[in-house]
Amino acid sequence: MGRLVQRVKATRIDIAGGRATSREETLAAEEPLEIRLGHEALMVSMRTPGDDFDLVAGLLVSEGIIFDGEQLISMRFCAGEDENGRQTFNVVEAQLRPDVPLPDPASRRRVTTTSACGICGTASIDAVHKATHHKITAATDQPMITAALLAELPGTLREQQKLFDKTGGVHAAGLFSTTGELLYVREDVGRHNAVDKVIGAALREGELPLSNTILQVSGRASFELVQKAAMAGIPLLAAVSAPSSLAVDLADASSLTLVGFSRGTSMNVYTHPGRIKV
Amino acid sequence: MGRLVQRVKATRIDIAGGRATSREETLAAEEPLEIRLGHEALMVSMRTPGDDFDLVAGLLVSEGIIFDGEQLISMRFCAGEDENGRQTFNVVEAQLRPDVPLPDPASRRRVTTTSACGICGTASIDAVHKATHHKITAATDQPMITAALLAELPGTLREQQKLFDKTGGVHAAGLFSTTGELLYVREDVGRHNAVDKVIGAALREGELPLSNTILQVSGRASFELVQKAAMAGIPLLAAVSAPSSLAVDLADASSLTLVGFSRGTSMNVYTHPGRIKV
Repeated sequence: MGRLVQRVKATRIDIAGGRATSREETLAAEEPLEIRLGHEALMVSMRTPGDDFDLVAGLLVSEGIIFDGEQLISMRFCAGEDENGRQTFNVVEAQLRPDVPLPDPASRRRVTTTSACGICGTASIDAVHKATHHKITAATDQPMITAALLAELPGTLREQQKLFDKTGGVHAAGLFSTTGELLYVREDVGRHNAVDKVIGAALREGELPLSNTILQVSGRASFELVQKAAMAGIPLLAAVSAPSSLAVDLADASSLTLVGFSRGTSMNVYTHPGRIKV
Repeated sequence: MGRLVQRVKATRIDIAGGRATSREETLAAEEPLEIRLGHEALMVSMRTPGDDFDLVAGLLVSEGIIFDGEQLISMRFCAGEDENGRQTFNVVEAQLRPDVPLPDPASRRRVTTTSACGICGTASIDAVHKATHHKITAATDQPMITAALLAELPGTLREQQKLFDKTGGVHAAGLFSTTGELLYVREDVGRHNAVDKVIGAALREGELPLSNTILQVSGRASFELVQKAAMAGIPLLAAVSAPSSLAVDLADASSLTLVGFSRGTSMNVYTHPGRIKV
């Protein structure tokens, strides 16, 4: 697992027994990643090291900067050493095709310009729509997956969570085919990073838009996760836990099927249920 | 609860029974909040509406902009209407005392200037140290709480999670006294927002640094949460789930006691165990 985990010494306290014992614990690693476009810094993100090129590629999709693998010419780790002279592998420089417009500084500060309605959910949804290249086609009468098969995906994902098994402290995202085949799985201490890594991995294989896939996530479904799925053209996002209200609003407006509380025996479909056959 | 929750129509699918029924579900609300310093936009953050002044105050502490309630002269909601002419309550303007230095644009873009070692965990920890006004005093031989009492805090917090009861999809943070009294509790779809709200509420009461308190959170402990606790001078952070490696490193370097997997019958103490009496 290399840099994915770190062993630390911890004191384990057993309350009833009143005992404290020292033992080694395995933690999921977390390190900052600086992403540069050419030589200019775009952002710094905390993430679990590993699959960093996938993460960068996926973030560029989520941020609406690229929408196609061919727009991303190359990625490389920049030289950079820690205090012990070891390469940090914490700076990635991405080279975009010259015709890709660079993000403007305002959006890079994540400060949206105030719209007529001040700032509100509707404005946030409009902003995602404007940035979305891969529009999801409206659901037809033809379901893409059965509820029974969809209900199995959290279990399949859980079986692949190698880092979770060791640490108990990471999120996972899995991209599945409509026949339930796991195409990509990625783990990270950050829920959004796991999704970016999966989408980035697919982008690097030239697979965007992901029109015929299902994204299963281990936790909740926030606005941000629906945004990422929508930007990649994924028509079905399923979460093990609850969605937020704005996640549902965005999924509704994006023709995306949003499933929550997918717990094996039941699930809630919040938007566009036509893609799921009961 | 007002704007804290939203009712939506969902399709509930029962897998074994092969039944789909339509029913109303209650979701935690999520809306963007734009924070302005004077008339200039500082950032936009997705959050659950409610306790917005606490959130803004706490964010200003976490970002190292203020460290004392007296530096924050006033906060107000700006005029701003949605498409139906309703006030959005999604823009807060904070007025700081004139002697408070404004953050420089680089840090506002969340792009840290590259240090000698490229960018790495050590550099991130150094950056927090430089920004920390309320240094935590090293743990002495005098514990601040018993393990048995600390183990009760997740249960006490859970009992106060009104929004979680309704929606099942929110995080909580609770600030406790050393005798286990709940001082402040806040909920949000974002784990970091819940912590900012609690710290902001205390700042507004003039209670920083929070040297004699314990912060209990409902989920994992990331670098970001340890950073927020450290900036507010909170000496003990307990999480129900796992910490990340960098969270442990920062806690260690900040003299902060970090507890993970606090599950009622046992807990792991990762740093500075002297504050807990077994």
